Amino acid sequence: MQQPILMDINQTVFLKEDAVVMVDRRYLPHKIVEVTCNNYEDVAWAIEQMVVQGAGDIAIAAGYGLYLAAIDIEKNKSDHISDVRASLWSVKKRLINTRPTGYHLKALLDKTFDSVNWEDDIASQILNSIEKAISKQQNRSRLTGKVAERLLENGDTLLTHCFPGPALLYMLMFAKKNNKTINVIATETRPYLQGARLTAWSVSEMGISVALITDNMAAYCMSQEMITKVFTAADRVAMDGTVANKVGTFQLALAAKYHQIPFYVLGYGGPDSTCLSGNSIKIESRDPEEVLTFKGSKITGDEVEGIYPAFDLTPASLINGIITDRGMLNPGEIGRYWNIPKIG
Amino acid sequence: MQQPILMDINQTVFLKEDAVVMVDRRYLPHKIVEVTCNNYEDVAWAIEQMVVQGAGDIAIAAGYGLYLAAIDIEKNKSDHISDVRASLWSVKKRLINTRPTGYHLKALLDKTFDSVNWEDDIASQILNSIEKAISKQQNRSRLTGKVAERLLENGDTLLTHCFPGPALLYMLMFAKKNNKTINVIATETRPYLQGARLTAWSVSEMGISVALITDNMAAYCMSQEMITKVFTAADRVAMDGTVANKVGTFQLALAAKYHQIPFYVLGYGGPDSTCLSGNSIKIESRDPEEVLTFKGSKITGDEVEGIYPAFDLTPASLINGIITDRGMLNPGEIGRYWNIPKIG
Repeated sequence: MQQPILMDINQTVFLKEDAVVMVDRRYLPHKIVEVTCNNYEDVAWAIEQMVVQGAGDIAIAAGYGLYLAAIDIEKNKSDHISDVRASLWSVKKRLINTRPTGYHLKALLDKTFDSVNWEDDIASQILNSIEKAISKQQNRSRLTGKVAERLLENGDTLLTHCFPGPALLYMLMFAKKNNKTINVIATETRPYLQGARLTAWSVSEMGISVALITDNMAAYCMSQEMITKVFTAADRVAMDGTVANKVGTFQLALAAKYHQIPFYVLGYGGPDSTCLSGNSIKIESRDPEEVLTFKGSKITGDEVEGIYPAFDLTPASLINGIITDRGMLNPGEIGRYWNIPKIG
Repeated sequence: MQQPILMDINQTVFLKEDAVVMVDRRYLPHKIVEVTCNNYEDVAWAIEQMVVQGAGDIAIAAGYGLYLAAIDIEKNKSDHISDVRASLWSVKKRLINTRPTGYHLKALLDKTFDSVNWEDDIASQILNSIEKAISKQQNRSRLTGKVAERLLENGDTLLTHCFPGPALLYMLMFAKKNNKTINVIATETRPYLQGARLTAWSVSEMGISVALITDNMAAYCMSQEMITKVFTAADRVAMDGTVANKVGTFQLALAAKYHQIPFYVLGYGGPDSTCLSGNSIKIESRDPEEVLTFKGSKITGDEVEGIYPAFDLTPASLINGIITDRGMLNPGEIGRYWNIPKIG
């Protein structure tokens, strides 16, 4: 089985001679375009432009951005630790502000920043922290995929939305190894078409049967018994079990509930302990032009405005289970995550 | 107030020297491309390719197709009435098969065909029937819009899907005359983007504030209290109150129900009396390529399949009212339509 490149972040976001290189996801699957980011501002721009996407991968990309900034700051070495710290703090803030809804970006940058010993080599400490995070994330993706796979039955047809990250691909890989025949239906996920370009393509690369639908067809497919389970990811899970994820997730969950189809969320490393309820999650608004155009050409009249919330909130009551690297939890008891022993 | 061209079928589908000319809706609003159909087969092709759309307008276009066929048949005059009748019957069948889900197409063609006196001038009888249907439809659109307008309150923001036809524009026109400020949010309606290209554009042409969203954003907008009422059209209303309409209508109705937002259907001339339940409505499957591409360019991997149901079924339980030219009816009592006296 071919391993899709999106299963391994090292293949799409990596260091090359003190620069961060990203495979531009906006051009996948048809073109491999590499974007070279020479400084943290380039990285921030790339994150904002969605050269990279997915909560975990964005966090790693931003971490590398912090690393590039640390190299630059150390080059122009100031003797004042407080100056170095302040400079890097503002870089961190800039990077965190690129995408406010996701959990991992802020969590990784805060953690990395707070662990720095300012009297030691700062850049190498940051790099070390990011490399550890990559390996931790990969392990989490694999474990989450493994836990999720237990839910799959031979003959299932799974609906997905956006690109739910490597855990989805691990889940399908394990299912294949266990000789379960699984079919996938992917929503295209307008306006960026991550479902069409990233998910459907990656799944097809694994030799698994996958069909594409537009975002408005999900409920119809459910009514025709074409879908047996739904799996999406989570950009952030609140302590009340609310899930913030790519806009459209909420209405899929409503349709699944109506049709009594189980709705599962790939929750990777669990909830954000500082986020008590979904109401406190800031939903990112992106540039309305992205809704008014497709591949640069206008799709509506000049006087029409656009609205572009990039995420939405799915309440716990619509979710059958949040699947983490430690096991599956009911959304209402997601706080139990930390009581479950780590696997592997 | 400027009257949008889509408010009047005579501006987009009309006869010109024994040909049917259609303003190609696939290029609106940016280009006015006229397609000339010289025979019924050209008309059938144009309907299939969605040069024209909307259940009522498709019916008129097909009626003109039947008229062109009658001219041709009369030119090659056979003395045998039964031959003429058989030829025209197969033309009718061809035209009806272009779009199986909508009600009006088959209804108009059957009615026109059945009313022909085969010993008289056939073509002119058909033309007469189509012209009567146009004037009847225009009257129905205006009356339906008038009934619908009574539901609107100053400050409402209405969500629409696809292009619900002239009744929506009449409704907004009457609201404007009555000094009600109404805002509209239109779903783009993939894959053909009728919401973006036709609805949002037409509404903006009327000087009414309109915003575009992608099809996956509706539930989020509802959760943020950005929408007060939903209005869609119906390609067919069954006697049990089930509504067949552009795919995506069903999941909007589910989201509206969850948020307790009234969901109204512009039902124009009422239900199809021959269609007892939604289950008997054939849902048209269109070419999957239309889902796999966006404006002609491929959006996914080569091994990915596409699924393209063009319509879906919204059960009566999710609908607050079906608005017809005779008044608003509960979907559960849609059969009462014929008991209500005609207005105007």
